[in-house]
Amino acid sequence: MFFASDNGAPVHPSVLNALSEANTGYAGGYGADALSLEVEERIRTLFEAPEAQVFLLPTGTAANALALATICQPWQTIYCHRNAHIEEDEAGAPEFYTNGAKITLVEGEHGLIDPALLSAVITNAAASGVHNVQRGCLSITTATECGTVYSLDQLKTLTSIAAKFDMPCHLDGARFANALIKLGCSPAEMTWKAGIDILSFGGTKNGLMGVEAVVIFDPKTTWEFELRRKRGGHLFSKHRYLAAQFKAYLDNDLWLTLARQANASAQTLLSELASVDNFSCLHPVDANLLFVEFPRALHRNLAKAKAQYYFWPFNQTLEGPDHEMISARLVCSWSTTQDDIRKFIGAIHA
Amino acid sequence: MFFASDNGAPVHPSVLNALSEANTGYAGGYGADALSLEVEERIRTLFEAPEAQVFLLPTGTAANALALATICQPWQTIYCHRNAHIEEDEAGAPEFYTNGAKITLVEGEHGLIDPALLSAVITNAAASGVHNVQRGCLSITTATECGTVYSLDQLKTLTSIAAKFDMPCHLDGARFANALIKLGCSPAEMTWKAGIDILSFGGTKNGLMGVEAVVIFDPKTTWEFELRRKRGGHLFSKHRYLAAQFKAYLDNDLWLTLARQANASAQTLLSELASVDNFSCLHPVDANLLFVEFPRALHRNLAKAKAQYYFWPFNQTLEGPDHEMISARLVCSWSTTQDDIRKFIGAIHA
Amino acid sequence: MFFASDNGAPVHPSVLNALSEANTGYAGGYGADALSLEVEERIRTLFEAPEAQVFLLPTGTAANALALATICQPWQTIYCHRNAHIEEDEAGAPEFYTNGAKITLVEGEHGLIDPALLSAVITNAAASGVHNVQRGCLSITTATECGTVYSLDQLKTLTSIAAKFDMPCHLDGARFANALIKLGCSPAEMTWKAGIDILSFGGTKNGLMGVEAVVIFDPKTTWEFELRRKRGGHLFSKHRYLAAQFKAYLDNDLWLTLARQANASAQTLLSELASVDNFSCLHPVDANLLFVEFPRALHRNLAKAKAQYYFWPFNQTLEGPDHEMISARLVCSWSTTQDDIRKFIGAIHA
Amino acid sequence: MFFASDNGAPVHPSVLNALSEANTGYAGGYGADALSLEVEERIRTLFEAPEAQVFLLPTGTAANALALATICQPWQTIYCHRNAHIEEDEAGAPEFYTNGAKITLVEGEHGLIDPALLSAVITNAAASGVHNVQRGCLSITTATECGTVYSLDQLKTLTSIAAKFDMPCHLDGARFANALIKLGCSPAEMTWKAGIDILSFGGTKNGLMGVEAVVIFDPKTTWEFELRRKRGGHLFSKHRYLAAQFKAYLDNDLWLTLARQANASAQTLLSELASVDNFSCLHPVDANLLFVEFPRALHRNLAKAKAQYYFWPFNQTLEGPDHEMISARLVCSWSTTQDDIRKFIGAIHA
Repeated sequence: MFFASDNGAPVHPSVLNALSEANTGYAGGYGADALSLEVEERIRTLFEAPEAQVFLLPTGTAANALALATICQPWQTIYCHRNAHIEEDEAGAPEFYTNGAKITLVEGEHGLIDPALLSAVITNAAASGVHNVQRGCLSITTATECGTVYSLDQLKTLTSIAAKFDMPCHLDGARFANALIKLGCSPAEMTWKAGIDILSFGGTKNGLMGVEAVVIFDPKTTWEFELRRKRGGHLFSKHRYLAAQFKAYLDNDLWLTLARQANASAQTLLSELASVDNFSCLHPVDANLLFVEFPRALHRNLAKAKAQYYFWPFNQTLEGPDHEMISARLVCSWSTTQDDIRKFIGAIHA
Repeated sequence: MFFASDNGAPVHPSVLNALSEANTGYAGGYGADALSLEVEERIRTLFEAPEAQVFLLPTGTAANALALATICQPWQTIYCHRNAHIEEDEAGAPEFYTNGAKITLVEGEHGLIDPALLSAVITNAAASGVHNVQRGCLSITTATECGTVYSLDQLKTLTSIAAKFDMPCHLDGARFANALIKLGCSPAEMTWKAGIDILSFGGTKNGLMGVEAVVIFDPKTTWEFELRRKRGGHLFSKHRYLAAQFKAYLDNDLWLTLARQANASAQTLLSELASVDNFSCLHPVDANLLFVEFPRALHRNLAKAKAQYYFWPFNQTLEGPDHEMISARLVCSWSTTQDDIRKFIGAIHA
Repeated sequence: MFFASDNGAPVHPSVLNALSEANTGYAGGYGADALSLEVEERIRTLFEAPEAQVFLLPTGTAANALALATICQPWQTIYCHRNAHIEEDEAGAPEFYTNGAKITLVEGEHGLIDPALLSAVITNAAASGVHNVQRGCLSITTATECGTVYSLDQLKTLTSIAAKFDMPCHLDGARFANALIKLGCSPAEMTWKAGIDILSFGGTKNGLMGVEAVVIFDPKTTWEFELRRKRGGHLFSKHRYLAAQFKAYLDNDLWLTLARQANASAQTLLSELASVDNFSCLHPVDANLLFVEFPRALHRNLAKAKAQYYFWPFNQTLEGPDHEMISARLVCSWSTTQDDIRKFIGAIHA
Repeated sequence: MFFASDNGAPVHPSVLNALSEANTGYAGGYGADALSLEVEERIRTLFEAPEAQVFLLPTGTAANALALATICQPWQTIYCHRNAHIEEDEAGAPEFYTNGAKITLVEGEHGLIDPALLSAVITNAAASGVHNVQRGCLSITTATECGTVYSLDQLKTLTSIAAKFDMPCHLDGARFANALIKLGCSPAEMTWKAGIDILSFGGTKNGLMGVEAVVIFDPKTTWEFELRRKRGGHLFSKHRYLAAQFKAYLDNDLWLTLARQANASAQTLLSELASVDNFSCLHPVDANLLFVEFPRALHRNLAKAKAQYYFWPFNQTLEGPDHEMISARLVCSWSTTQDDIRKFIGAIHA
């Protein structure tokens, strides 16, 4: 009964097989091997973007921070949702990699940036010229930290606001596959066709050991990106093992299969939870995350059964009146089973 | 016939097995899993340093840069050999992670810092007080970039110079195992007992996929290190797969076995090369690297046979007089075989 | 009729006299002259802080950014009011000097930090440990950007919240003198006795040419501050001319006299504005700034008379309905005269 | 008898007069005043560079560091002479402002960069591509730290080496006027006509209180420079007082008159020193600095007479054998008098 995070799940077996297959003989270092080149080309094809440049990286924080540093100057600001991962969960990595850019927070329900608020804050920015931090870039996350997914229209609305001010757009796609499954569109439609210039294309939360791909649709900045990656200590010498993982991810659309499973599990869990007393769901469940609320007594039951998940926010406790509502985050992964869900629901009612 | 780099070698099969074994069920993220804790404890035991803190990282550049940033302020300088990896091969990662510290280069034969020169440059530093970059730390590499290994006495001489000025000492041990095999001493003797405060303990060049351990012997700075690692994007969510690799490395002293093989191969290659016309060896072969010189015609033979290695320096070419001497670097790895060596020598003479 | 800013005012004649007096013969550079040492000692005496260290700097932005960098690590955050100068008017200087610290904004009426909101945001910070930007320091401004002044009790309430989390406190005193006049207390009472650790003590907005003093009440960090100042390019070689200005500032309490004049002018202007149709004052006038609102038609009258001041916010215009309300900032300086005020009021009614 | 530094000299009286003249009424802040605009235009005219952009700054360190940050990326290196001010006397300000660029040192006699060595080090740079710090810019100083002055041909030789690699060139002109007097050429000839892209045009060492001008001949980067200046805390609110100083500097060619005096004093001092026992001069005296050597006993005489100057290097002392040679730096300034020189020579022989 592990619903704490999608990165607590094991790696899909195909990924380990791919590592073994890649482990034959010598290979050029730092991406100069055949497997790395093949994977880069396949990602270009997948995104219908023959000019795009692709970079493999070990963590989502590295992918986001390097992407942002490449499109945002130190004296500029990054616009994002108040709950964005880059604001709340990366210990200041964007500030570090950009050499001190600011992050300007925009509100919006269910983790979705409110376009009117975004437009207002950008329009009013830098009114005093040189005295102000300047407009830099927009960073959008989908699936969001609340488990919601922007529609293509919503994405385009946001990127067109940025475009009015000549700002590039970054997409934090740590759960890109989960969002794509929800929308049922193509990778191109959810990225460059919707105004995205640079993408963090997640793999780790969806069955890989530790690989994300940064896809740069505008190849002008790629040499700078390469230098920043090396300088950040993120250029792997034995790069083929990053590539092997991503090859397994793309083969037979494994990435879509795994995300589809995780999203489906989330829907199953949601429908089972409907039976729980006083249950409510705080955000639409578009991907593999649920934000739920039910009485403390039931959380105590789950604790007894050693169910693993986070109270959200963290500062709630098992101590207190039975009937008080406690909110929590439940995350399904590719490896969540029907049995896990059944046990979880069983434990609530125990 | 691959002698280009030890990071072109495949991963040792035990490492892949360890990944498979680790791939069962769910685990806490970011190092909060049993395997990670076990590996950290084993490294402490290995170094006879119960207070030490251990951090796993994916690349040597990250290990070095984060270690240096933790012991060197932005307005200070790092003393190292002119050919140190941190100076020549990390694209300015130390400067990036330290927020602009300087690197002061010290000369010395065979990649070894000359103690008299080190002492002089440190003594004369910061004579104008606030107008100067300040003394920061000493960074030593062993095995060095020239394939030589400091004796314990040589190490202590250097660290005692730093100690006179209250400067901490970093050891870049990308080839730590190869150096240890040469000295036949204990890990503790080659580190904290010799005055080292923080160590980059290499795994990647010696059979792992991509893991290095930073060992901090003085635990005062570890919380800062943790924050810097996260901020640099180097804290893995699925941390158990870094730990699994390192567990395989330590199990049955695999790390020593592999380094012993690589060093032995280097000695075999050296003795075979003695038969080559006009051959000379430019540095003592203490570890797994050879720096050699022989006539261009023989390099042409090797090129025809598709032997892979680097001219050193890079700017030499196959074009030119037959008898002119060309210098090259040859690297043996754990996977270098007697057959590889026999073929290489055969190709020279072909 | 210049009410645009206190830094548009000329320099007080005593300051120029002091420069002339200082301009005799040779002097040691970089602060090693008798006048500099004298001024530092006088500031220590003024603040009843014999251990304090004093540094003269040319701009308020440099003073604030260097002070903050000295007390806030790159992976930490600075808490301040949403309208603080460090957030809105320094083009990211704090982010630059701290190497990428974050600024966390706290709301509060009239430019005053709301203690309950501050307490909540600090309490809830860094709940995920290493994944979060850490608590750093508190920066308070008085007189605030809204022209209000914290009472001593209000100051202590804020600094005691920071103290609970072992966070140091910075005071942005660009208009320190104006605030002190309002409170009628001693410099010590408004700083270290109220929990302030490091102060930007303004001179430029109050009659100097360009000097601010940073006063560090805890002398442990002063060598670091000196290095940061030099590294920032803010250590003057001909330092005696900074010291001379500040000497004139302190002689005969000129600094208090000038601030008293400016505050009194603001009160006169306020009382005269009471006669204006539909006039309202948006914030209490505790110092030398007024935030006022009156109909557009009257602003047109002022524009015709070439009165200089800023609409606040900037994006309001003279175009539009006559009776619509326009808000504006009016700043009095030491050199504002009764005649200036009379003319301004006359122009409104013209 | 003050020969310690040209920044120990007082300010020329015209400068104080200009400050008084500027001190009438209100003025726009941050450079938006008539005087600032006038001075910028005059500098453009002086340099025959109608497109150039001009920025006034308070210190030479700020001027150099901001200029370099504008033309050198964080992952690049700055080539300069081993004894350049940016390497030896700015406490790492270039590293700070560039966010961690490296400085690569080039040797050369008498403080002059050796063109063959420069060419070699640039040619051999970045041979490993992304693994290396990249070529950034060239920084030349004239008059050099050894008091020598490059001929126009020498300057062009150096800038043409940089041009081959598309690197921009910075000129550290802290003693620009002294160099110009030596060459007798025009400011344009010594800068953009010789391949200089960005200039630190010194004022402080030559009679001003504290103003340097950065002149950017290629206006593409000026908005970035403005933002960096503000972000560095170097944009003065009461900017007219910087402008006033520079106006006085340009009026009646004061800047040339003062430099001519200083250079002439250096020549007088040099010819008088010829009479001293065992005297030798270590570098050609092209500007206002002398590097000299004579026996310790004579330095003792000077010490008794309280002559002020620096031993060079600093680590020599008055203790030791009488006849041992001690080397020293003697600096003449605009305010050095014939009498000062006579007394100095008298004291040696006393």
